[in-house]
Amino acid sequence: MTRTLLSEAQGYALLEKYGIPVPRYAIVQTAAEAEKKAEEIGFPLVAKIVSSDVIHKSDAGGVITGIASAEEAGEAFRSIMGNVKAAYPEAGIQGVILEEQQKAGLELIVGGKTDPAFGKVLSVGMGGTLVELLRDISLRLLPASDETVRAMVRSLRGYPLLAGYRGAGPKDEEAFCAIIGALGRMFLEHAEIAEFDINPVILYGKGACAVDARIYVSDLPLPARQDTGDVAPPGNLFRIGSVAVVGASQNPDKVGYAICRNMLAFPGALYPVNPGSADILGKTAYPSLSAIPDRVDAVVIAIPAAGVPAIVEEAGKKKIPLAVIVSSGFREIGPAGKVLEDQVLAAARKYGIRVMGPNCLGFMLPAQGINTTFDPVSPRAGSIAFVSQSGAIITTIVDWSLPEEIGFSAVISVGNQLDLTFEDFVAWTGSDPATNAIILYVEEIRDGRRFLDVVSRITPTKPVIVIKSGSSEIGQKAASSHTGSLAGSAGVYLAAFREAGMIPVRSIREAFQAAELLASEGYPSGTRAVVISNAGGFAVLSSDYAERFGIDLVHFPDELVRELDAVLPPAWNRANPMDMVGDSHPEQYAKTFDILIRHQDLWDIAFVIAVPTAISNPIRVANELIRFSTHTKKMIVGCMIGGDSMKTPQRILRESKIPNFPDLEDAFRAVGNICRYTCRSADGHPGCRKGSRD
Amino acid sequence: MTRTLLSEAQGYALLEKYGIPVPRYAIVQTAAEAEKKAEEIGFPLVAKIVSSDVIHKSDAGGVITGIASAEEAGEAFRSIMGNVKAAYPEAGIQGVILEEQQKAGLELIVGGKTDPAFGKVLSVGMGGTLVELLRDISLRLLPASDETVRAMVRSLRGYPLLAGYRGAGPKDEEAFCAIIGALGRMFLEHAEIAEFDINPVILYGKGACAVDARIYVSDLPLPARQDTGDVAPPGNLFRIGSVAVVGASQNPDKVGYAICRNMLAFPGALYPVNPGSADILGKTAYPSLSAIPDRVDAVVIAIPAAGVPAIVEEAGKKKIPLAVIVSSGFREIGPAGKVLEDQVLAAARKYGIRVMGPNCLGFMLPAQGINTTFDPVSPRAGSIAFVSQSGAIITTIVDWSLPEEIGFSAVISVGNQLDLTFEDFVAWTGSDPATNAIILYVEEIRDGRRFLDVVSRITPTKPVIVIKSGSSEIGQKAASSHTGSLAGSAGVYLAAFREAGMIPVRSIREAFQAAELLASEGYPSGTRAVVISNAGGFAVLSSDYAERFGIDLVHFPDELVRELDAVLPPAWNRANPMDMVGDSHPEQYAKTFDILIRHQDLWDIAFVIAVPTAISNPIRVANELIRFSTHTKKMIVGCMIGGDSMKTPQRILRESKIPNFPDLEDAFRAVGNICRYTCRSADGHPGCRKGSRD
Repeated sequence: MTRTLLSEAQGYALLEKYGIPVPRYAIVQTAAEAEKKAEEIGFPLVAKIVSSDVIHKSDAGGVITGIASAEEAGEAFRSIMGNVKAAYPEAGIQGVILEEQQKAGLELIVGGKTDPAFGKVLSVGMGGTLVELLRDISLRLLPASDETVRAMVRSLRGYPLLAGYRGAGPKDEEAFCAIIGALGRMFLEHAEIAEFDINPVILYGKGACAVDARIYVSDLPLPARQDTGDVAPPGNLFRIGSVAVVGASQNPDKVGYAICRNMLAFPGALYPVNPGSADILGKTAYPSLSAIPDRVDAVVIAIPAAGVPAIVEEAGKKKIPLAVIVSSGFREIGPAGKVLEDQVLAAARKYGIRVMGPNCLGFMLPAQGINTTFDPVSPRAGSIAFVSQSGAIITTIVDWSLPEEIGFSAVISVGNQLDLTFEDFVAWTGSDPATNAIILYVEEIRDGRRFLDVVSRITPTKPVIVIKSGSSEIGQKAASSHTGSLAGSAGVYLAAFREAGMIPVRSIREAFQAAELLASEGYPSGTRAVVISNAGGFAVLSSDYAERFGIDLVHFPDELVRELDAVLPPAWNRANPMDMVGDSHPEQYAKTFDILIRHQDLWDIAFVIAVPTAISNPIRVANELIRFSTHTKKMIVGCMIGGDSMKTPQRILRESKIPNFPDLEDAFRAVGNICRYTCRSADGHPGCRKGSRD
Repeated sequence: MTRTLLSEAQGYALLEKYGIPVPRYAIVQTAAEAEKKAEEIGFPLVAKIVSSDVIHKSDAGGVITGIASAEEAGEAFRSIMGNVKAAYPEAGIQGVILEEQQKAGLELIVGGKTDPAFGKVLSVGMGGTLVELLRDISLRLLPASDETVRAMVRSLRGYPLLAGYRGAGPKDEEAFCAIIGALGRMFLEHAEIAEFDINPVILYGKGACAVDARIYVSDLPLPARQDTGDVAPPGNLFRIGSVAVVGASQNPDKVGYAICRNMLAFPGALYPVNPGSADILGKTAYPSLSAIPDRVDAVVIAIPAAGVPAIVEEAGKKKIPLAVIVSSGFREIGPAGKVLEDQVLAAARKYGIRVMGPNCLGFMLPAQGINTTFDPVSPRAGSIAFVSQSGAIITTIVDWSLPEEIGFSAVISVGNQLDLTFEDFVAWTGSDPATNAIILYVEEIRDGRRFLDVVSRITPTKPVIVIKSGSSEIGQKAASSHTGSLAGSAGVYLAAFREAGMIPVRSIREAFQAAELLASEGYPSGTRAVVISNAGGFAVLSSDYAERFGIDLVHFPDELVRELDAVLPPAWNRANPMDMVGDSHPEQYAKTFDILIRHQDLWDIAFVIAVPTAISNPIRVANELIRFSTHTKKMIVGCMIGGDSMKTPQRILRESKIPNFPDLEDAFRAVGNICRYTCRSADGHPGCRKGSRD
């Protein structure tokens, strides 16, 4: 793919087509023409060489600024031509461009680039040298609505300079938004534009001007983001009454043994397939798939890669709708494996079989007793779906989830995605009624547009939390110095996640904490929080965490303080976070909850902190907390902090599915992660609310 | 305290005294004088009214710029006088100042303010409007060495602008550092200066100029930071052979009961004091302190506040060196309590008794069986000291520490600090040989200078980790718009912690993770890390975390890769983080460790990740990890991640005091917290190294 930089005049012409204000300009071929055109444009003027062979125009003496008269314009023309011909005797010269010199204003940058997964993206930043020092860049996928454009402008840290700051008047935000919107349309409508940078767009009190346009066109078609239509979730594939395991084994060292062992819990029919055994783990074994007398809904394949295409062919003949290929030795080992993969795909397409993997762990549906993996343990049933691009992370998480008492509706390892892809599995968990929250572990998304379409349909009613690995900026630091590349791939992923209504987190613990909270409480109705604590230290820490994680502590109106005064010890602090002081009894929690229920229009989230004290009764506090949560649709977050003295209260909360955080910072971080990406309006996501599943 | 703003001329005169370049200027009283002085100064010039009654000089027509001739200077004088007299007929006018107009350069700001706890602090920031938008401020306590001044300049995010950026030449960093150093001296040597702002200091390729000086002087003496001399740690106070408990009780609802119950584990002599009982919890009780026949090393007082002064008096007569006053009802309840506190202090001073509290939990020295608190549980013995300004946090932490198997050398609740203060307790834990790491929970430091002196002496050989609560910026946002106040109190605390060599963290979990890591491994020798993993997903996440937390992943030289190739499966990734792939046996960990031991000059920290896999043997990996740690002085960080399958390996590590993090992000955050504040030089802190306690 070759990229060509449009000349300045070509760039200006394109911008003008989209109604974007550019300086008055003309390309001239002679000194006489320069004098004439200069008069037409007006002064002061800038003159620049027009030549695709001259990259560093200033260094070659190809730029002259501050031209104040027609005479000077003619003189500038002669100087520039002389300078450039001396510096680059071979250069092709298309002439000299004369441009109206813009007066000073607020400089901003608008850029566009084409992401391999998500297509065309737009970025906006503050101009000048600080843009790169401070990385004050806002990035969105295209197309971007007027509302999105405004939001990206307002999210700049330098926005106050635009809105009017320290005596400087406001700049023309409307004009700037119009330019960004027009650039977005230009970028989308011109498939050949690969990348562009307008640096700067100069903004005035009234009006704006795009002064320097670098637009790169490509000779190859570029991915454009389109609506991919409905993605049918392959839900019926997962309604499974009978499973065959090819490669089933009696040998405990074999993967086929571990799979059969895990599948023994399956209440449906299990058919081990092994030509050498009549019985495996107490189940009748069959010499081949075709020897199984009954209907088979899914076949799990765990034999060496070379034999897999034949098995898929055989499965096709038997009309088995789903093949789960656990075997490795395919694309991931090189060309020979790729050949085998192609054979598998051909067989699958021929018979209409859907394929999971190869080189995957398979999947687990604990409520149905299905575990096609060779994991040593099987997870509990629950309401969280986990779809992962790493098998090792699944094995680790499942092991970890057992003592943590976290349950899953589905655990899916996507493997090589030969047929069924990441997006298919996400679509399915989205439509699965047993799933209340979805966690994705993402290494790379190949079809960004389809991914966005799928996830955007899920998030209004079901939270999707995502951990993206490989998001470090090491690569980005090496990125070139134009804006388009400033926000590297991690920024594009983040913009995509935001657009799709997902909740990005940075660790597995954060992911599960957010998922459990959302699965129980739904999206919060806003970011206004109250904090109730029986320990002053934790109340103070709460203020710090609330500020750090973007949670608003509501001011208590006098009326509320008066009501609380009547039920709390005299030493309470009469503010939010509430410090009820150490000798607060469970009754004081209960009465506080009653008052907060009556005033629940004032807040969206309540953090209830209880720590061990000499006279506390945390079990009663836990029970009052359950009552509190039952009597409000607001998000209630338990923070019963301590060791053994909190174990029983924590269990009481867990059994009532009330979220509890034994670490206060984790509680605020989880709520902050959620608020940041879902509280876009006062209404939040109306579809996923606490109690909506009742 | 009143604050007076020096006039511009007074300010310039003061700066000149310290060799700081300022514009040439003159104050004139007549138009004729203006013309004459203007010629002497040179053009262009700025003229400004000199009047302490006119705050907004420009608005009053009191500033004229761009004066290009003597004639214009005379005219400017007349205009300014006319304008100001019209706008402020009552204003006292001292004349008009004529100033050389500076040419454009890089604008920076230097400010100073007086912190109530830490005394005079200096701040440096980028100038222009962006300083406030971006809060690019570097702050240090005074006095600041030349090295510190240079470090604060280089830590500015805008430093590249100063060093030369995108074609702009470098600015005169030496001149800037000299100005900062001189301003620091000026601020320290003039006790009356409360606050100042030089905005801007204009920096050129050669030279600099302090253009606008706002210097506030106070009519009250201000705290100046001084060396407070040695702080004698009250160590002998804590060598305790016998304890009396005044307020001892048989009634399980009483604090005096809980204290006696906790003290039953004490192997020394325990003397319950209660006039109504002859026996409490199986120990002979005495009607009064004076009735105890033997020597008493410490008395714990848990009776209503009103009775406490008399008990302290009695203790004094009995020559008891330490009184621990658990009772509340003193300063914290108001003036009446303050009176009681004064009586207690008077009695203590009279007899030379040292007092802990009042209104404190007391202290716990688990190895000595001492627990003077009424906490329901006692902690394990260990090597971490915890000194806390919140009693509730102690109770919570001790409860939490038991199932977490964290042990303490000392747990101290400081209470009202009537006599023994926070600094005394920190000094004592610093000198306590059983303490390997110290955690402080700080709400407010009163005597910042003494605090710094104490801690600075400890940190070279013993890590001090600090959680400062109440550090939210809500208050700071309301701060006034001059630099001096830009970095509010939280910034001053952070600067102080950094100067003292402490490790600030933001949560209790982080504090204990850092403490346990340091107690076992000592300070790392640098930030160069290797990561060994049997799971690709976690290896990728490691890169993200390493970048986020400032840990450098070393590049593997070819020789090292060749050696590793000989022992690892062919599919390993040949890079750092090392992905040894899922089927790596314990032998592969062992051989990798051997090679890394041979090449330990290449790295400072090793993260060893092991997750459950079908063929992994985490118990053997744990044992190899212990061998690895034993054979190197470098920091070894275990990351054995999982659930029940990792419980035994985790226990094996714990018993060998090898740190293990079940959450990968926590591991990198802990190491990052430590590196950020202790790896200031390649040598780190030489005094606290792994193995130095052997």
